[in-house]
Amino acid sequence: MRLSELSERSGVSLATIKYYLREGLLPPGRRITATQAEYDESHLRRLRLVRAMIHVGRVPVATVREVLRHVDDDSLGLTMRLGAATWALPQPPEPDADDPAVARAREEVDRLLEELGWETAREIGDLSPVYRSLMASLATLYRLGFSLSAAELAPYARRMEQLAVLDMDRLDAMGTGTEQVEAAVAAAVLYDPMLLSLRRLAQEVESARRYGIV
Amino acid sequence: MRLSELSERSGVSLATIKYYLREGLLPPGRRITATQAEYDESHLRRLRLVRAMIHVGRVPVATVREVLRHVDDDSLGLTMRLGAATWALPQPPEPDADDPAVARAREEVDRLLEELGWETAREIGDLSPVYRSLMASLATLYRLGFSLSAAELAPYARRMEQLAVLDMDRLDAMGTGTEQVEAAVAAAVLYDPMLLSLRRLAQEVESARRYGIV
Repeated sequence: MRLSELSERSGVSLATIKYYLREGLLPPGRRITATQAEYDESHLRRLRLVRAMIHVGRVPVATVREVLRHVDDDSLGLTMRLGAATWALPQPPEPDADDPAVARAREEVDRLLEELGWETAREIGDLSPVYRSLMASLATLYRLGFSLSAAELAPYARRMEQLAVLDMDRLDAMGTGTEQVEAAVAAAVLYDPMLLSLRRLAQEVESARRYGIV
Repeated sequence: MRLSELSERSGVSLATIKYYLREGLLPPGRRITATQAEYDESHLRRLRLVRAMIHVGRVPVATVREVLRHVDDDSLGLTMRLGAATWALPQPPEPDADDPAVARAREEVDRLLEELGWETAREIGDLSPVYRSLMASLATLYRLGFSLSAAELAPYARRMEQLAVLDMDRLDAMGTGTEQVEAAVAAAVLYDPMLLSLRRLAQEVESARRYGIV
């Protein structure tokens, strides 16, 4: 398809597409004349991903470029490629190792991973910002005087594990490696707000079930 | 306890506590002399909640005051009190009714609620910003060219329902109405980042299980 059709199908303006091309967020089309290039479905997919990251995830352009570099790096295994792409997204700051709340959080997280049989999460541990960001959220809770143990976290983690199986089943049903990684990055940015809304809605429903509506 | 002990036990500076008192975010202590007042456990709990909202939830002071007004309003039933307190927290903007993506999102959300038997969520519907914010997140997804149906959302909603039962069991085990509502508001602010970290961690673990670590 031509640039104009790409713009129409994606709903992204010509000016924005040209900006993404200049910034290297969208690979160039196949040149067919001196002034025209041909684009395909992979450009449309990439364009949607870039928009999701910039407009919903509020990811800076330089970070988008870095994420896409990992998405396209087929020298990596799929776990690392999925990981590297989402790890490049904005992350919370490093927890302070001298803080007693951080020490307690690390203990509870390690106990949780052992209880769940998530040994791989500890192996990936130092490579992945996810382990650290779980620790940081928990440390914040402790610092504010709230308490939450590994045993209390476990049922939440179990439900997330069941959803991860569904997530990966959907990815497995997709085409090539790049399409899978693109879909995973889009889901990382787009699904979180939905999951949190579903959580609140479920709480309302359960509360109404127990205590009535008014 | 005296103000100094309240400061020590909460880890909140005297200046900040005095600011919260002036702003009406913390009820005054019981006056024992012309210059001294006595504080109790309810002040400590309230102080922790206020800090969680301001420092983690980045909730503006005026909104904190509004949330606390609902927390303390025991003329409301518990569902409404829980709802009103969390509904006063910052919410996404209203979806645009003329947008076809919003119309499609409304259709899918309504189909989802029917499938789940969450009729109460539709009854609360117009009162609650949660229903609208689910619609808004879904509409964003559609607008960006991604597709997600009620049937695909249902397993996510089911897991959130199981967690809501756990959440409400924990609330039920707590003391008075005000303590319950305080705990629910704190959880609304503090648990979201943790749940999202657990989700990512579960995805890493499942990916490593299927494709190996490297």
